[in-house]
Amino acid sequence: MPGIGPKSAQRLALHLLSRPIEEVEGLATALLQCKQLVGHCQVCGHLSAEPVCEICSNPDRDDTTICVVSDSRDLIALEKTKEYWGKYHVLGGLISPMAGIGPDQLNIQSLVQRVATGQIQEVILAISPSVEGETTTFYVGKLLQNFTKVTRIAFGIPMGGDLEYADEMTLAKAIEGRRELQ
Amino acid sequence: MPGIGPKSAQRLALHLLSRPIEEVEGLATALLQCKQLVGHCQVCGHLSAEPVCEICSNPDRDDTTICVVSDSRDLIALEKTKEYWGKYHVLGGLISPMAGIGPDQLNIQSLVQRVATGQIQEVILAISPSVEGETTTFYVGKLLQNFTKVTRIAFGIPMGGDLEYADEMTLAKAIEGRRELQ
Repeated sequence: MPGIGPKSAQRLALHLLSRPIEEVEGLATALLQCKQLVGHCQVCGHLSAEPVCEICSNPDRDDTTICVVSDSRDLIALEKTKEYWGKYHVLGGLISPMAGIGPDQLNIQSLVQRVATGQIQEVILAISPSVEGETTTFYVGKLLQNFTKVTRIAFGIPMGGDLEYADEMTLAKAIEGRRELQ
Repeated sequence: MPGIGPKSAQRLALHLLSRPIEEVEGLATALLQCKQLVGHCQVCGHLSAEPVCEICSNPDRDDTTICVVSDSRDLIALEKTKEYWGKYHVLGGLISPMAGIGPDQLNIQSLVQRVATGQIQEVILAISPSVEGETTTFYVGKLLQNFTKVTRIAFGIPMGGDLEYADEMTLAKAIEGRRELQ
């Protein structure tokens, strides 16, 4: 499991062996229930215990904007900012010819269907700037530009970051993406 | 000196003691010469052995754009990107009421004079997003907006960065600063 090496694994195993059987049964049941109950939202693909997730079914959220992310982890990170109040769409990965993942294996068709309704005024592509991320951004962007305005999140100096320690690519993006001072 | 703790200092001192006297004299002379020869460019304030630095005296560089930085380290970082081909202005620090540094102690008056000539079409503020950096950006921006277009570099996800690991402020800035996909 991620972040658990042989030493941590042994410590966890010995800890579980030292606990009463009921406690271990509780954990085992919880794990199974979690796996059985949590599926994907039919609308956006986010993890959800209900057929439609809390965000998609929230009538207070702006349903004219869709923020497209690679996976639920990124959605959770964006939710923590409390800056975005639209809906989401979770692709379930990125296009990666190296790993044999094409557009068909991702949640892209359902995104096009959502946008094709004509109700969506903006699609924000919030995808990390890796090689796979760029490929996916341009593929999805091209598909959706026929229907609506497509934007992507800003790349540049991270907040609290120092110019001096930024890599050259990031600095170049920061200059390229400069904006008029308000 | 920065990055040199007691152990490194001892190692360097013992190394110098083990070298012949001529070599140590050479280093001492070089240090003095360096300090005597290198001053500040009269135009932009960058480190320079000449009265006017190489960048300011380069006729091939676009002299309608000035990129404002806090110090020469940031200028060097920007030069490494090879993306910027205008001139610079080095403030020599940031406004910091806590440290008793006001606008008068910085290279701001000479910047206003350069911009007031009317030849400058854009001033790019490339200042790190710290508290002092923001203060300086808004102070200098306000001063210059009477004369010309003032932009600032982009803040957002660093290149190669992962959304999941970005802090909330940076993610919020990345959403706020989103741009239309080309």
